[in-house]
Amino acid sequence: MEAIETRRQAANAKAVERMCAAEPVLVDVRPAGRIVPGMTRETILTSGAPLPWDAYTGGQRSAIIGGALFEGLAPDTASAVTALAGGRIRVEPCHDHGCVGSVAGIYTASMPVFVVEDRAGGGRGFCNLFEGPAPARLNYGVWNDDVRRSLAAIQDVIGPLLGEAVRARAGVPLRPIMRRALHMGDELHSRNTAATLLFTRELFSSLLDLDDARPKEVRRLLEYLAASDYFFLRLSMAASKVAADAAHGIEESSVVTAMTFSCREFAIRVSGLGDAWFRAPLPRVAAKVFAGYTEADVELMGGESIINETVGLGGFAQAAAFALQEYQGGSAEEMAVLNRAMYDIAVAEHPEFKIPYFGFRGVPVGIDIHRVTATGITPAMDVGVPGRGGGQIGAGILRAPLACFEAAMAAWVNRYGEPTKENRRPGGWGGVAR
Amino acid sequence: MEAIETRRQAANAKAVERMCAAEPVLVDVRPAGRIVPGMTRETILTSGAPLPWDAYTGGQRSAIIGGALFEGLAPDTASAVTALAGGRIRVEPCHDHGCVGSVAGIYTASMPVFVVEDRAGGGRGFCNLFEGPAPARLNYGVWNDDVRRSLAAIQDVIGPLLGEAVRARAGVPLRPIMRRALHMGDELHSRNTAATLLFTRELFSSLLDLDDARPKEVRRLLEYLAASDYFFLRLSMAASKVAADAAHGIEESSVVTAMTFSCREFAIRVSGLGDAWFRAPLPRVAAKVFAGYTEADVELMGGESIINETVGLGGFAQAAAFALQEYQGGSAEEMAVLNRAMYDIAVAEHPEFKIPYFGFRGVPVGIDIHRVTATGITPAMDVGVPGRGGGQIGAGILRAPLACFEAAMAAWVNRYGEPTKENRRPGGWGGVAR
Repeated sequence: MEAIETRRQAANAKAVERMCAAEPVLVDVRPAGRIVPGMTRETILTSGAPLPWDAYTGGQRSAIIGGALFEGLAPDTASAVTALAGGRIRVEPCHDHGCVGSVAGIYTASMPVFVVEDRAGGGRGFCNLFEGPAPARLNYGVWNDDVRRSLAAIQDVIGPLLGEAVRARAGVPLRPIMRRALHMGDELHSRNTAATLLFTRELFSSLLDLDDARPKEVRRLLEYLAASDYFFLRLSMAASKVAADAAHGIEESSVVTAMTFSCREFAIRVSGLGDAWFRAPLPRVAAKVFAGYTEADVELMGGESIINETVGLGGFAQAAAFALQEYQGGSAEEMAVLNRAMYDIAVAEHPEFKIPYFGFRGVPVGIDIHRVTATGITPAMDVGVPGRGGGQIGAGILRAPLACFEAAMAAWVNRYGEPTKENRRPGGWGGVAR
Repeated sequence: MEAIETRRQAANAKAVERMCAAEPVLVDVRPAGRIVPGMTRETILTSGAPLPWDAYTGGQRSAIIGGALFEGLAPDTASAVTALAGGRIRVEPCHDHGCVGSVAGIYTASMPVFVVEDRAGGGRGFCNLFEGPAPARLNYGVWNDDVRRSLAAIQDVIGPLLGEAVRARAGVPLRPIMRRALHMGDELHSRNTAATLLFTRELFSSLLDLDDARPKEVRRLLEYLAASDYFFLRLSMAASKVAADAAHGIEESSVVTAMTFSCREFAIRVSGLGDAWFRAPLPRVAAKVFAGYTEADVELMGGESIINETVGLGGFAQAAAFALQEYQGGSAEEMAVLNRAMYDIAVAEHPEFKIPYFGFRGVPVGIDIHRVTATGITPAMDVGVPGRGGGQIGAGILRAPLACFEAAMAAWVNRYGEPTKENRRPGGWGGVAR
């Protein structure tokens, strides 16, 4: 028994060490179909553990259909639905392709994606681009001409020019930007204002060079960057994805390496438990809704930006971002209390990502399913909140459902044996993995 | 008696209303000699209430001599000293010319200055430019070839190009930048990282236009801006100067409209007490010194960046900038406690400059000499710390000496009469104004 517990802790230390060692560098911006492994023209990637087509409802279903129409895979909604039901258009989970989806998380082959390489671990992650500040966006389940125009501008102008600028300077290291942004009021999930500015400044000199040939496009890109305080979120997601993936697949580790949700379920993946998803019904979000909406209008439609919490950002760094109160509610004191609680379920503190308010204590990193089940404290996540009928209607805090962690812990015990007595849970380990 | 107290409070409300209403806009960058009122080629402006030449010692004296040499007013130190002692080169206080000096605060005629207009009150303020990140700078009492080269680059490249970029976009409003920066970890005195980035982004499209004609200069300016997290301090100083000046000269007001210090004295000016400076010996600074120095190496040599505290920034907004711990010491808790104490001596809370950690409470604004003397709480100021022999050797917190406020309160009582009984100070009002 002692031996297993010692080995579990050693495995977790190794997992978190890899997670913290990641050196994500943005190396390119390319169409998903040309760079994302396994991506075909008929593939649409969406958020959450895999579900059959019929299980996608509401905004997530609308978003998938919108993706098919944007990509020209079907001429109208009815034929898109037929193609999706018949399997001609395939819906697959983002995580299986090195991607992470924001909200519904729609990826189609022609959408540009950030290509982020982990210079330490060698892994690669991808994320598509922020659609802009309008509340109606494809990833929030809306498909109309405005959304089509935004996506077309990203595909035709923003993505290609960003790619050129990034290649011209041989990549943009993201870790230094993230480290600084945490000292400037970002928690890098629901607040990315400083990181977006820091990234923009990194690109200035390349943009000066590109300005001779394409002055209009350069100005269009700068407008997009200036209007999009959330721009960097997609980069912090890709950076978090490579960090989390670096920690995956370590035998005996009980560290969470992915959290995700669809319109139906929340799910987690664990380093030492292979590719199984441990699922539970969706929790309720504690939302602050925009004027004109009520909490009854909230309709979750998926989300994988919580990969950031998986590696110690977002809800795990709220005390770095007190300005978030305005956006997602709560008080500074509540934010600090919540953030402190996250240390109780984390294996370590990040050596470089630090919270000034906590005296530059490292963010809590590496969620241990054992600690979650033993304490009943579940991960807190800062999320954008979609509404029934599509569009963003607010922001708030989501708590992961305990049942996922119980299911994962049961699987861990089943595979590796009982932890030591003092770590054993009185009621045993419930739940099952699917 | 009651009537006087009522009128005092009404006067203070008016003073603070004007202070908060200021709309500072950077409209130009010009050589001081062409724009600063009363500036001549033989004038050198320095920090602090006026002193005879002989009274300037140490770093401040070296800085004034360095200014004379930079401006070519004398071929060497000995002849500069002769010209200064004889009055051919005149040393005057920055504040008398609409300027505010950082540390020793040296202005000579050819140095470029930011020209900031208050679009609400109509006033104008000036501040010269940050010399760059090297610890050895003229305003820290150092004069050598490196300092000369930095100043020359500012005079020949940085200043003129900034001026062109600013004129091309018809001015840069500073208030929105300052408001946002307070949500991004700046208190706008010892931390200006976010404001510098926001300002840089504002300028970028003008710089793209200027890039065709002067690509080298544009890149040089961007390098300067990227290397100078403190760049914006000079803009927040000029913005604070116009806000403080707008509140000056209101009969019966007991609100402080300037704080300043030289190498010898600390001094304040009060809205309802004309242009008199109320002086006291220099306080000690609670400094965190850079590696290799001790507190014994500290040598104050003047400073007027504390105009920012006069209008509610810096030490009055520390809880917006917990990352400052690293730079100037203290804990987040101490910073919050100190910041809260500043509300006890301020007349109002700023309607737009807010502190996220305090639930977006406005910064405390308008220091009331009555409250300072009644409570014994003196203004806390975030300052850069110079060392013996010149150069910056650290940063820290300076508390204004109570004696200035006692002297000012005595003058106020002498001019306007005793405040109400409950506001009267048990021991009477001591001190004198010079």
